[in-house]
Amino acid sequence: MTKDFTGILNCPVPIMNHKTVQLGHGSGGKMSHDLISRLFLPRFTNDLLDELGDQAQILLNSQRIAYSTDSFVVDPIFFPGGNIGDLAINGTVNDLAVGGAMPKYLSVGFIIEEGFPIDDLHQILLSMEVAAKRAGVQIVTGDTKVVNKGSVDKIFINTTGIGILAEGVELSPKNIRSGDKILVSGFLGDHGITILSSREGLSLENQVETDSAPLNGLTQKMLEAAPSGIRVMRDPTRGGLATSLNEFAQSARVRMRLDADHIPVRPEVQSACEILGLDPLYVANEGRLVAIVAPDQTEKILNVMHKHEYGIDAAVVGQVTEGDDGRVTILTGLGAETIIDMLPGEQLPRIC
Amino acid sequence: MTKDFTGILNCPVPIMNHKTVQLGHGSGGKMSHDLISRLFLPRFTNDLLDELGDQAQILLNSQRIAYSTDSFVVDPIFFPGGNIGDLAINGTVNDLAVGGAMPKYLSVGFIIEEGFPIDDLHQILLSMEVAAKRAGVQIVTGDTKVVNKGSVDKIFINTTGIGILAEGVELSPKNIRSGDKILVSGFLGDHGITILSSREGLSLENQVETDSAPLNGLTQKMLEAAPSGIRVMRDPTRGGLATSLNEFAQSARVRMRLDADHIPVRPEVQSACEILGLDPLYVANEGRLVAIVAPDQTEKILNVMHKHEYGIDAAVVGQVTEGDDGRVTILTGLGAETIIDMLPGEQLPRIC
Repeated sequence: MTKDFTGILNCPVPIMNHKTVQLGHGSGGKMSHDLISRLFLPRFTNDLLDELGDQAQILLNSQRIAYSTDSFVVDPIFFPGGNIGDLAINGTVNDLAVGGAMPKYLSVGFIIEEGFPIDDLHQILLSMEVAAKRAGVQIVTGDTKVVNKGSVDKIFINTTGIGILAEGVELSPKNIRSGDKILVSGFLGDHGITILSSREGLSLENQVETDSAPLNGLTQKMLEAAPSGIRVMRDPTRGGLATSLNEFAQSARVRMRLDADHIPVRPEVQSACEILGLDPLYVANEGRLVAIVAPDQTEKILNVMHKHEYGIDAAVVGQVTEGDDGRVTILTGLGAETIIDMLPGEQLPRIC
Repeated sequence: MTKDFTGILNCPVPIMNHKTVQLGHGSGGKMSHDLISRLFLPRFTNDLLDELGDQAQILLNSQRIAYSTDSFVVDPIFFPGGNIGDLAINGTVNDLAVGGAMPKYLSVGFIIEEGFPIDDLHQILLSMEVAAKRAGVQIVTGDTKVVNKGSVDKIFINTTGIGILAEGVELSPKNIRSGDKILVSGFLGDHGITILSSREGLSLENQVETDSAPLNGLTQKMLEAAPSGIRVMRDPTRGGLATSLNEFAQSARVRMRLDADHIPVRPEVQSACEILGLDPLYVANEGRLVAIVAPDQTEKILNVMHKHEYGIDAAVVGQVTEGDDGRVTILTGLGAETIIDMLPGEQLPRIC
């Protein structure tokens, strides 16, 4: 009755550059890709997983659904404009939304450290309630584990979500064509700089707040306005815009060029980045999206974005150009063009 | 455009018996129920969540699906007969299976401590691969976070799963009737005693192994054999059989009586329990189920169970009796009848 799985269990360890897991393996950048492609994919390979999108697309009795999971380990758990609770709701809502799905149902798994204040837990739950109401999703099942003091840093939250994919919605990097425009929905780097400045006690002249927000309302408006004009979308979290664009460019075998002058970055985020030695293109966002759109639909899409509370500052930041080497470059104000690579290791651990 | 949620965010903290989260709040017993009903449910209330099953049942375009989530924090992560990896697959597979669903798709979320050995991670992934193949489920999406040393104890894994509910399958404590029989699928307490004895370095004369196993094959056979004879099933994990039966009895407003002489417990588990001061009825299982079945279908169901590798030792351990007070009792060999209550606090933290 039982099959023999000894062969699998004796499978040798793949050769990796490190003997132990490094922070960079969770960066969302190159090292993450390395870990996933060498260690994880060979084990779990199947058509759905191998797409490696932020969500899996499943056909259930002729209904297409999107399915996505995310664990939240942000430090600190409370920060200007939000906390780990609303972040956990918005994060999974956004992973579904940028796949073109309408998020519907979430599960929530809490891992809580013994001794965690009930007041703080209550505050996190209230924020989750508001975030779920704002996004129009229901939390339908959950799990709570409590571990001994020291076994987890305060609280970690996993959310997993199911969304509905409307007929005809087929977003994929494969749709990207030379000439397409690159849009972002707002200012970049607010979330990452908020977390880092609260962690480091950095006092900025103008306090930055997280951009954490549910994007499903915005994506629905965009899809309604230009159902065939949107090639692919993503929420540039860990690894920032640079990582999302590199993934797109490599997957689609195209070249992309950003225009530095058009990338929306708040002056206070820009100066914090300079102090901290960071590039805003690599800093995490939790309520922004990047969309690759057909050139002749760009105006229409930008118009609906500008009318939405989470797209007011949307801008065209670059375009897909001739070439098939998966390279992303940036054109600076001075006319120089430099390569924007994927984040090699970890920039900011526990950013989400 | 944005609704005002200030009212929710100012909601006062419910009165709890503790100011901080205790290990008992994760026990699966009384304190867990307290935390969930006072703190979590008021925030997330909806028809699907309020059922408080081990899985939510969702209608998606006329297809009924089951949805379940679980985080695994077991310590140690490697133990006789398994590790955190296969446990994480089997745990969610079983939560779906005992709801009567066919588990199909899993998501996996890893939270890994910086410095965790790649070899160990590989071993865990191999076990997950085998467990997924054994259960016939696909891992379709995932997430990996790496946190600084000391922020998590080695590795935690969340799995969330989607299963398909066949037409007509409506398992619920509400179906329970006086006269129904209580079945368990095998020996109780193996998993809990395995974890505890490896943790404490307890050397037992006969080494016990975890019972961790996928139960979906067994539940399908049972449902095929007696589609209308199975009232409800559950996998008695945290809190053990006693907790599952108390939940059933209270939810169905019935009374249940166990027969001590018929409860299958291995002698080595029994003696370990005596040494450790535990009652096997409260010890966690990870590959056992309890089913409440119609009296006239009991034989038929037991027969198919006995033919299945994970049901060979199935036994009738008690029955539903007259009375509506939700009380569970046990009849000992000496004729005494004592009350089996829910676990008040935490017995064994990090058992799964």
